[in-house]
Amino acid sequence: MSSRRRAVAFHLVTALPELGRRAKMAGRVVACASGAVKDAALEAAADLLVQSAAEIVEANAEDVARAEATGTSATVVDRLRLDASRVEAMAGGLRQVATLPDPVGEVVDGWVRPNGLRISRVRVPLGVVGVIYENRPNVTSDAAGLCLKAGNAAFLRGSSAAISSNRTIARALREGVAKAGLPTDAVVLVEDTSRESAVAFMRLRGVIDCLVPRGGHSLIQAVLDNATVPYVIDGDGNCHVYVDQSADLDMALAIVVNAKTQRPSVCNAAESLVVHEAVAERFLPLVADALEGVELLGDQGTRAILPDVAPADDEAFAAEFLDLRMSVAVTPTLDDAIDHVRRYGSGHTEAIVTSDLAAARRFVNEVDAAAVVVNASTRFTDGEQFGFGAEIGISTQKLHARGPMGLRELTTVKYVVEGDGHIRA
Amino acid sequence: MSSRRRAVAFHLVTALPELGRRAKMAGRVVACASGAVKDAALEAAADLLVQSAAEIVEANAEDVARAEATGTSATVVDRLRLDASRVEAMAGGLRQVATLPDPVGEVVDGWVRPNGLRISRVRVPLGVVGVIYENRPNVTSDAAGLCLKAGNAAFLRGSSAAISSNRTIARALREGVAKAGLPTDAVVLVEDTSRESAVAFMRLRGVIDCLVPRGGHSLIQAVLDNATVPYVIDGDGNCHVYVDQSADLDMALAIVVNAKTQRPSVCNAAESLVVHEAVAERFLPLVADALEGVELLGDQGTRAILPDVAPADDEAFAAEFLDLRMSVAVTPTLDDAIDHVRRYGSGHTEAIVTSDLAAARRFVNEVDAAAVVVNASTRFTDGEQFGFGAEIGISTQKLHARGPMGLRELTTVKYVVEGDGHIRA
Repeated sequence: MSSRRRAVAFHLVTALPELGRRAKMAGRVVACASGAVKDAALEAAADLLVQSAAEIVEANAEDVARAEATGTSATVVDRLRLDASRVEAMAGGLRQVATLPDPVGEVVDGWVRPNGLRISRVRVPLGVVGVIYENRPNVTSDAAGLCLKAGNAAFLRGSSAAISSNRTIARALREGVAKAGLPTDAVVLVEDTSRESAVAFMRLRGVIDCLVPRGGHSLIQAVLDNATVPYVIDGDGNCHVYVDQSADLDMALAIVVNAKTQRPSVCNAAESLVVHEAVAERFLPLVADALEGVELLGDQGTRAILPDVAPADDEAFAAEFLDLRMSVAVTPTLDDAIDHVRRYGSGHTEAIVTSDLAAARRFVNEVDAAAVVVNASTRFTDGEQFGFGAEIGISTQKLHARGPMGLRELTTVKYVVEGDGHIRA
Repeated sequence: MSSRRRAVAFHLVTALPELGRRAKMAGRVVACASGAVKDAALEAAADLLVQSAAEIVEANAEDVARAEATGTSATVVDRLRLDASRVEAMAGGLRQVATLPDPVGEVVDGWVRPNGLRISRVRVPLGVVGVIYENRPNVTSDAAGLCLKAGNAAFLRGSSAAISSNRTIARALREGVAKAGLPTDAVVLVEDTSRESAVAFMRLRGVIDCLVPRGGHSLIQAVLDNATVPYVIDGDGNCHVYVDQSADLDMALAIVVNAKTQRPSVCNAAESLVVHEAVAERFLPLVADALEGVELLGDQGTRAILPDVAPADDEAFAAEFLDLRMSVAVTPTLDDAIDHVRRYGSGHTEAIVTSDLAAARRFVNEVDAAAVVVNASTRFTDGEQFGFGAEIGISTQKLHARGPMGLRELTTVKYVVEGDGHIRA
């Protein structure tokens, strides 16, 4: 970029508080918009994405070139890279969100007090949803679509690596939103991608009603350390499959293989296998065979049966590998299995394979996780698989949202209290 | 305290991480306890509070003497002070919580996916609820009771000013809980009341599942600045009553007087009156008369009708007075009234008095607050008035809990996923 262009760009970067003010004002309009208008905005934004595909891919090429020039890893560059089909997929995502039911206005519950006061809880938008994310430019579109549909302004802060792509995508989204008669500031992108700006973003209390960080450990830690706005953490998944003594071993085998290998790099993939000792001698050789290509790390009980398996230490049992490794423990009882899961689990998804009703009930009740799964793969913990149509993340915290976060989790509730002149005695 | 006693006390103060570990372990047991056992624990704790009343009042006298010796204000000393009837009231609070329905186990919703996977969302305890609070020793008992009933361990951190009272109360509660067969560490009091300990408490991520701060601005700010655990803020209430042009003015008068004067020191008391100009000339003299003893601060429109009223600046309109003062604005339209409320409101409770259905609908939809009230006093935003039986606070944030927080808000949900060997394609 020439120094002249840089100077212009500098002037075009609006100060963060002003961007926040605009998002907040726009949020008030989006909050009261009908479902039809919001859906029209999503459709128009999708059209504009497709129309701008060449421009987006060109801007993206700048980002990719910059990343490659600075020696960024191939994996990260792949996350960054867009082509026409990826832009089409982003547009398709927006159209799909448009087909989902509008969460706003749902009467969650309601009752009448003895004094005649009528109380109802109604689902309403959060206001401004802040999303801070890393290198995937599709998040700009995906997050904006979900925020808008739930009646919120989307206040987006991507990484410097994807700034050219994000700017071009955001421009298309803003134009689309305007076509439907909603304020352009229903989508606001922060173009200052400095570290200071990220911290300031996390501290816009009174502006950002909910912050959703989408990224790795260092981003999450930065949020924990700096944020004063409310946030929902999309955390690790150290997911277990426990094979009970009563398990159908064919079923268990299929579930373990699916949970571990169907897509090892995602948070709902299984990282650890726990086997009841009564079936370990039969099951472990089968599973070792079926998991060919997966490196197993086992405890003593495992290695007594599978001597070639490397020993697993505490770190291995606590690890979210996200690749073709799996820790394995043999436990003498269901209690020990539950203890193991409690000790090492990250509160994401924990599965039991069993034919014993009492064991299933105990596992479901005593294991503390966003999702507890009986006789199915851990891979089902996902907004689409749960039927939410789309998700903005999977929360591993317990406040506000737990598990896959769909449109409902991008809303809050409001009490509506109706009287006939009621005063308090 | 002699130096020998101090040394002993020092050794008795268990380190915070160890206390956290105990609370977490105890929480697992409480989480699975039946409603009957939890209620028995609450009853036993209530009995023990009453039996320990003399001891509690004696310990409290130490706290009060210390506070008075250091020149603490009379108001604060009054909050700190306990007598036999206040201890009785604490016990009564626990017994009342025992009569409430158990929130744990409620199936919030459930559905079957096209592939036959059964999904349900079940209400479960949070785990460990941290409560950090100021000088009122009754919070020790009230908070512990609500946490326990919702299946959580109560991890309590009161102020140094109330430490003798809190220690004695916590001991009674712990004994009561043990009598019902629950772990004593279902109630854990942090006895190190240093500032460092408070900060460390707010950073016990992985131990505290939800932090509820109960106190003034400086405590809230300390939580915003330091907490890494999830928290729910119980914020200010700058509550408005808007008197529409179509209002029944007798009703409006009764509501304004009730909202302002029935208990001015609480967060759901009204702080600001907004009057449509079409009725201002009739209504303002009536209300000035009825609010005798309340200092009014008005805008130009108000002062044109009530010339003796002092002028209100921005600060006055933004103020949560918590005493017998009230800001007054006259607005030409409903839109201006809504703008005024949006500008100055704190998101707690906003009321409209009107007989116009369209005005009521617009106010309800467009005002963003935990509670919007039509034709009733703002004073109804309260856990008991809403029918929750008791409350641990009133949230003015939008995540997790909004408005009065009862037992339900001290829980989270868990997805239970049941298959027949389902794997993901």
